[in-house]
Amino acid sequence: MASPVELLSLSNPVFKSFTFWVGVLVIKIFLMSLLTAVQRFKTKTFANPEDLMSPKLKVKFDDPNVERVRRAHRNDLENILPFFAIGLLYVLTNPAAFVAINLFRAVGIARIVHTIVYAVVVVPQPSRALAFFVALGATVYMALQVVLAAAF
Amino acid sequence: MASPVELLSLSNPVFKSFTFWVGVLVIKIFLMSLLTAVQRFKTKTFANPEDLMSPKLKVKFDDPNVERVRRAHRNDLENILPFFAIGLLYVLTNPAAFVAINLFRAVGIARIVHTIVYAVVVVPQPSRALAFFVALGATVYMALQVVLAAAF
Amino acid sequence: MASPVELLSLSNPVFKSFTFWVGVLVIKIFLMSLLTAVQRFKTKTFANPEDLMSPKLKVKFDDPNVERVRRAHRNDLENILPFFAIGLLYVLTNPAAFVAINLFRAVGIARIVHTIVYAVVVVPQPSRALAFFVALGATVYMALQVVLAAAF
Repeated sequence: MASPVELLSLSNPVFKSFTFWVGVLVIKIFLMSLLTAVQRFKTKTFANPEDLMSPKLKVKFDDPNVERVRRAHRNDLENILPFFAIGLLYVLTNPAAFVAINLFRAVGIARIVHTIVYAVVVVPQPSRALAFFVALGATVYMALQVVLAAAF
Repeated sequence: MASPVELLSLSNPVFKSFTFWVGVLVIKIFLMSLLTAVQRFKTKTFANPEDLMSPKLKVKFDDPNVERVRRAHRNDLENILPFFAIGLLYVLTNPAAFVAINLFRAVGIARIVHTIVYAVVVVPQPSRALAFFVALGATVYMALQVVLAAAF
Repeated sequence: MASPVELLSLSNPVFKSFTFWVGVLVIKIFLMSLLTAVQRFKTKTFANPEDLMSPKLKVKFDDPNVERVRRAHRNDLENILPFFAIGLLYVLTNPAAFVAINLFRAVGIARIVHTIVYAVVVVPQPSRALAFFVALGATVYMALQVVLAAAF
């Protein structure tokens, strides 16, 4: 088995792919904050008194456009952040490069699609459900491999 | 001190234990999504218009069963995800195996108990508070060890 | 390029700084749970029937003090947890020590300031926005460096 030295080096194509997708997904998560801000200003929906731009405004929590982006954002936290942890440990189990790289791609692309169909252009179901389950399935597969590698 | 090569290898029992519990807890977190979905279908509580199964339904946000699972899920994000980060750094401080392995076990078991008593079978307090503080205490201990190791 | 062995050792000042700030920020995140609890008891706002301290109380979800702390807490999850993942990968790209250490400091200090002006002593805008964007900017810079290092 390769040593952690080689596994966590960018000369390891599996780690390189993981690193690339983590970087892309971190930027994607942060875009949710900007998208929330855009919706807040568009709909004048601010959650804190100190954020109100005019004395005529009041705090507001139920704008459907703001809440939609916030749900998509929260869904990212629920799904992408566990992937960051398990993906690194999966790299350290020295998986077959072809499988691992395609799993990372699947998670990365599926989560970008999830955001688009949820919070950018609303697309009817089952598009969001499909994107959700592709990323979930790939991450659960990694988690099971990690548990098996560590259990015996 | 052992080198990171050995510390992040599955032949290091501390890293092996950490890896096992991260895998288990990632799967546990994902089960919260499924549990939320089960509650949503049971109570016909959907947050998005495109999720409504019938034209007679309306979006709904206040079902207590759905909200309970969502609170438990959010509590996982608040507590388990920081553990993933600090646990790895704690492994890299080369802690005594007996202490470290039991801390990981404490976090893993306490968080599973937390979910059960919060969102599966509601058990009176202080069961949930106890499960919460066992995991929190173990993680804070690791964080303090990490800060001390890095500060001097 | 240095090997991951040296990069993830506390004798690497970049990793040492990262480790320190992750430890500090994990403890900071957990303080949000305590702050939420303090506000819940102060305002007698409990979200679960089993948490009610007296049979006269009812579950309540809309106390502005509790909700403010919860928003600050959620903002931590959205911003600090992605930093934990990208920061580690950034360390593994072997960045210049001066730049990296100051980026970690910027994130750590900006996020502590963010919490103070949001949830401890409410300070008028743009203080919270500034703290938010300093941490976001530093983390996005790391994410871009990581993507560039992995893409070519």
